[in-house]
Amino acid sequence: MRPLGRLIPLAEAKTLVDANTRPIERTERVPLESVLHRVLAEEVHSIIDVPPYDRSAMDGYAVRAEDTFSAGKFQPVELDCVDVVNAGEVPKRVVSKGKCMQIATGAMIPKGADAVVMVENTERSRKKVQIFRSVPPWSNVSKKGEDIRKGTMVLRPGEVLTPSKVGVLAALGMTGAEVYSRPNVSIIPTGDEVAEIGTELRKGQVYDINSHTISSILNENGCVPILHEVVEDAVESLIGALQEVSDADMIVLSGGSSAGERDVLEGVVSKLGKVIFHGVQIKPGKPTIFGVIGETPMFGMPGYPTACLTNGYVFLVPTARRMARLPPKIDLVQTLPLAKKYAADLGRHQFLTVKIKDGEAHSVFKESGTITSIANADGWIEIPPNVDLIDKGTMVEVHLF
Amino acid sequence: MRPLGRLIPLAEAKTLVDANTRPIERTERVPLESVLHRVLAEEVHSIIDVPPYDRSAMDGYAVRAEDTFSAGKFQPVELDCVDVVNAGEVPKRVVSKGKCMQIATGAMIPKGADAVVMVENTERSRKKVQIFRSVPPWSNVSKKGEDIRKGTMVLRPGEVLTPSKVGVLAALGMTGAEVYSRPNVSIIPTGDEVAEIGTELRKGQVYDINSHTISSILNENGCVPILHEVVEDAVESLIGALQEVSDADMIVLSGGSSAGERDVLEGVVSKLGKVIFHGVQIKPGKPTIFGVIGETPMFGMPGYPTACLTNGYVFLVPTARRMARLPPKIDLVQTLPLAKKYAADLGRHQFLTVKIKDGEAHSVFKESGTITSIANADGWIEIPPNVDLIDKGTMVEVHLF
Repeated sequence: MRPLGRLIPLAEAKTLVDANTRPIERTERVPLESVLHRVLAEEVHSIIDVPPYDRSAMDGYAVRAEDTFSAGKFQPVELDCVDVVNAGEVPKRVVSKGKCMQIATGAMIPKGADAVVMVENTERSRKKVQIFRSVPPWSNVSKKGEDIRKGTMVLRPGEVLTPSKVGVLAALGMTGAEVYSRPNVSIIPTGDEVAEIGTELRKGQVYDINSHTISSILNENGCVPILHEVVEDAVESLIGALQEVSDADMIVLSGGSSAGERDVLEGVVSKLGKVIFHGVQIKPGKPTIFGVIGETPMFGMPGYPTACLTNGYVFLVPTARRMARLPPKIDLVQTLPLAKKYAADLGRHQFLTVKIKDGEAHSVFKESGTITSIANADGWIEIPPNVDLIDKGTMVEVHLF
Repeated sequence: MRPLGRLIPLAEAKTLVDANTRPIERTERVPLESVLHRVLAEEVHSIIDVPPYDRSAMDGYAVRAEDTFSAGKFQPVELDCVDVVNAGEVPKRVVSKGKCMQIATGAMIPKGADAVVMVENTERSRKKVQIFRSVPPWSNVSKKGEDIRKGTMVLRPGEVLTPSKVGVLAALGMTGAEVYSRPNVSIIPTGDEVAEIGTELRKGQVYDINSHTISSILNENGCVPILHEVVEDAVESLIGALQEVSDADMIVLSGGSSAGERDVLEGVVSKLGKVIFHGVQIKPGKPTIFGVIGETPMFGMPGYPTACLTNGYVFLVPTARRMARLPPKIDLVQTLPLAKKYAADLGRHQFLTVKIKDGEAHSVFKESGTITSIANADGWIEIPPNVDLIDKGTMVEVHLF
């Protein structure tokens, strides 16, 4: 048992993590119904014009615009209606001088016609249609390729496929798209006291919480969590487990709360790869380890549930998003008065979980070992390392979960 | 073909939708690995204490606090170390007067001991441990049930299972939870010009965009979209399709852009159920239909892609969330100057899609028939019905997608 050595500042730790993780290169083809929120890995060029034909934007009459030029509210022009064209149909006739064709929204503009008069501006009796308004050429017509021209690049690699971009793929008739794979993250719970959910607790054991909170935040941020069984805190077992998951894109060890266990882990990582840092000036989460094994970044998270999850938000969320090529998370922030004075630790950047009640931020932090310190929280406030006391009523920025 | 009759104001339309839709009652049991973001349907009472035993919060020595009372930096107290207790072990011995036991973080406090001295405040040589700091009783001990007391209600029906709440379920060893079912929403694309993705476009046809954008936003907001094949705009076909999906929690018809088609749909809904409104004072999306068939709410969305998706954000997102028992969506808003003057339509509440560029909001709205009017947008601004012109430079609130 030895205490942690030199702790590094939070900003330095983040820089080191960024320098040792990189956006995923692997791609895969997924069907259209599964592309939502995925990150596009290809240029999408339209192979068709959208719309694929000149089409009517209104219900009305397809006309030659010049035939309507003299029309007005009190001097209608009368045209002969030669046919009807419905949506999905190909017009069977041509519109020549003095003629018109009844047309539905979305239907093809017949040859000869170059504009549509809205039904509201017409009056019909049998084959005769009175036009009460003049229209310029291409009025109420969506021209072929007006929305998307054939050959245009419409979506670029790196774009997140939001609902409207899924709509663009659909407009082109694409049945799927090439997207970046979601990084696989192996989660290894460690600790001799940790029992798996679904087993009966023996004396001296607690249930594995961290695997489930960590896999939840990875899921929320573009990664695929892969849960490993609990591994005991022994050199050989840890080496075995780490080698087993060596093809993962990232490894997260989710337990090992004591200094002794962390020494074991630090030793194992040093042996298999390289420890980048061990110990950060933050609270909770001081004992966080980060290293690289082969090409694979590895986090050793603090074992205590609130410490583990807070550090998940601090380190894993931005890293997961960067690896998954998602844009940084947009933080929702509310500025509120602190309900009670709070004494902080000088020299450590603190993430204090708070609950919002009656327009004030109340600390709900009991200790890092509790899950309720975070489960009852609406968000957190950050206390910089050079602050040791925040007075009641001080305005604080609450970052919402 | 007839133009729409009386249009109702947006607020009235929203009130009518709320009055005719209700939160889902159906529940289902899902395993722990699938509970993230689901809505809890049961009270969760803890059947265990968390932690389940008094445990050490630090690496150090379990002591009787009173044995340390005279200890100080320059006058250590010396205790005999009788054993070691690691995490996951049951202590085999008792700590009596003048004794101590080496203990790891997370390990059970041995009988007799009532506090832990951190390793940093001790010095050891063989069996003798010098204690340089006095500790009060229960120092560095997490007491049994301190986090969650056995029998307490820890989660309530209606709570959304965020990562930290998933952690609470894990802490209790729960392998799953009873949650509200996600509402099933049947999406029926209609329109004779609409072709399914994966088929070849015939002349006069366009690909079905709306089913895919609508199913995306339903997916994002707690519902399960179920895609129906394209249905032609004929009374019998529409009746058949609506009867087929009568067990859905909601029905969305995603096409039918022309007034003629909408008359057909209005007639069909009147026959099978009741039309609540047809036509809203908004742009785009004027021809939106809302009705009820049996117990099932039904939306007839405008056929044009941008109109359909904008109306999806206006009507379907809040309705889907309410039905799924999710809290209202938190709108991300940026206040920016409008890049160019914009002439709006008096009498209609307009949703104008905009792109953010160089700190200004640029209109990207071409017309409702285009998908790029929304795919190139970062968000939208709302223009109230009594405004007909917004000057360049006016500060507008951009709601981000």
